[in-house]
Amino acid sequence: MSGALVVLSGGVGGAKLVEGAYALSERAGMVVIVNTGDDFCHLGLQISPDIDSVLYALAGYSDRERGWGRQGESWQFMQAIRELGGPTWFNLGDLDLATHVMRTLGMRDGQSLSEVTSRMANAWAINAQILPMTNEPVATIIETNEGPLPFQRYFVERQCAPALQGVHFQGSSDASPAPGVVAALAGAATIIIAPSNPFLSVDPILAVPGIREALEAAKAPVIAISPLIGGQSIKGPTSKIMAELGMAGSNDDIVAHYAGLIDGIVTHISDPVPPTIESAQTDTLMQNSHDKSRVAQCALDLARRITR
Amino acid sequence: MSGALVVLSGGVGGAKLVEGAYALSERAGMVVIVNTGDDFCHLGLQISPDIDSVLYALAGYSDRERGWGRQGESWQFMQAIRELGGPTWFNLGDLDLATHVMRTLGMRDGQSLSEVTSRMANAWAINAQILPMTNEPVATIIETNEGPLPFQRYFVERQCAPALQGVHFQGSSDASPAPGVVAALAGAATIIIAPSNPFLSVDPILAVPGIREALEAAKAPVIAISPLIGGQSIKGPTSKIMAELGMAGSNDDIVAHYAGLIDGIVTHISDPVPPTIESAQTDTLMQNSHDKSRVAQCALDLARRITR
Repeated sequence: MSGALVVLSGGVGGAKLVEGAYALSERAGMVVIVNTGDDFCHLGLQISPDIDSVLYALAGYSDRERGWGRQGESWQFMQAIRELGGPTWFNLGDLDLATHVMRTLGMRDGQSLSEVTSRMANAWAINAQILPMTNEPVATIIETNEGPLPFQRYFVERQCAPALQGVHFQGSSDASPAPGVVAALAGAATIIIAPSNPFLSVDPILAVPGIREALEAAKAPVIAISPLIGGQSIKGPTSKIMAELGMAGSNDDIVAHYAGLIDGIVTHISDPVPPTIESAQTDTLMQNSHDKSRVAQCALDLARRITR
Repeated sequence: MSGALVVLSGGVGGAKLVEGAYALSERAGMVVIVNTGDDFCHLGLQISPDIDSVLYALAGYSDRERGWGRQGESWQFMQAIRELGGPTWFNLGDLDLATHVMRTLGMRDGQSLSEVTSRMANAWAINAQILPMTNEPVATIIETNEGPLPFQRYFVERQCAPALQGVHFQGSSDASPAPGVVAALAGAATIIIAPSNPFLSVDPILAVPGIREALEAAKAPVIAISPLIGGQSIKGPTSKIMAELGMAGSNDDIVAHYAGLIDGIVTHISDPVPPTIESAQTDTLMQNSHDKSRVAQCALDLARRITR
């Protein structure tokens, strides 16, 4: 396998897998294609939560206890915003703010999200390519029983409480893959779909015209890692959403969702082995660096088995 | 005297006097007209250093040891900006950032600097009107032996090292006084020119067409407080600049500079009494709240004496 490892990733859960893969020797030339459907403008700042999760994970900056944002983070800015009567539903840490301010500045100066992201990765000595799925604006909109909600309003402000009836990706039909995305998929040795929310974090990537097609045409085996353990999502609303969409919430639903795209799936060790597709089992709960690399290695081993 | 106390102020030094006046019983309806010639856009944020100094002083937020910015300030954002290779010559504290982010957001939403400032003063329960000299952009440009420098580049980045040859206020001829400024001067009971830098902090206010005229036409006595003690400025480059402009650096130069505008001057207790104008003497070094109020009271008493 001459090509690189390519990972499709959303935010926190995906970033753990990306971090695990980055610690392996196969990381050389690793490319991460990241969901930008969650991106939004808040307090005048351009925020790319999933890109930031991946950047922080690979820079070694992730907060391991809180599960999001930067370690050693402080909240003085938020306290001052509160005193000024500003919006407080979305937390911006003092360290994290620098990322958003520099991104906003770069994009206002005419840099693309790709360029801004690449500069940050370089500044933090990250030895992997982190590519936004697209440089065009795409917004994940959640159709709920209370009406349509932009992603962050649903996910952060409402804590996923409203019942999800559907999802659409505003702007995706006019978007094109960011530079390098299609080439990375075409030339990949292995493609992993991280255990991110398939509906909210991976589907927006697949909705960018050209990415699904590149994945289908890729020579490399495509391995998904299931976000479910015992039918439940470890973190986030995957299983709640699956129930709301009328699914049983098993790995079979994940396999069906990715039908035509994936060649294999990694599932949790105690879950039933999916009957219709190549699979590998491991403990998919990623609590420490060892876990993260083990899950990534399991996906790579499955890819190797399929390729042979 | 039925009108209010009106103070013309620059940043740190002026804000001390404003704080002193605010603590007096005569503060009812107090209006502060603040220099905005130092305002600039940095990291995409709209920064009004002198307005912020006055806001922080009256909110009780000023850092007394550092002499600028907010007490309890932290610098995590700056550390993260440094890691990202961003500009570090102008320090933005984590608390302070909230002011700039909220101002930038408000102005992008179409609010004037007056409106944004007034909202902040309300949020911090400040019982005085803080008015920018103008809502139009005016930029203080320092002509130096190294060429023209925008104010913050000269003052903060270069620490006033280049020799000053002149000052101009870009945009001032097209600017108009912010709402309330002319009316406040016309209806004032007393007008105080704070011990701010006459050339860099007070002159930009006077350069806004209509303000000098309103000051000249005001019925109230106008009292300047000298920024000099023994011919030296306590803080900042006033005496250095006076030397560069060929002045001896005495209170007579200050009186001459404000000729036609002021009716009296407060000077330091050990300095020679200015011969050509009504004056009062006190220790003008403002190290604590008591000092600040004493100096403000001295100016008010001088005004009362002149009015009688």
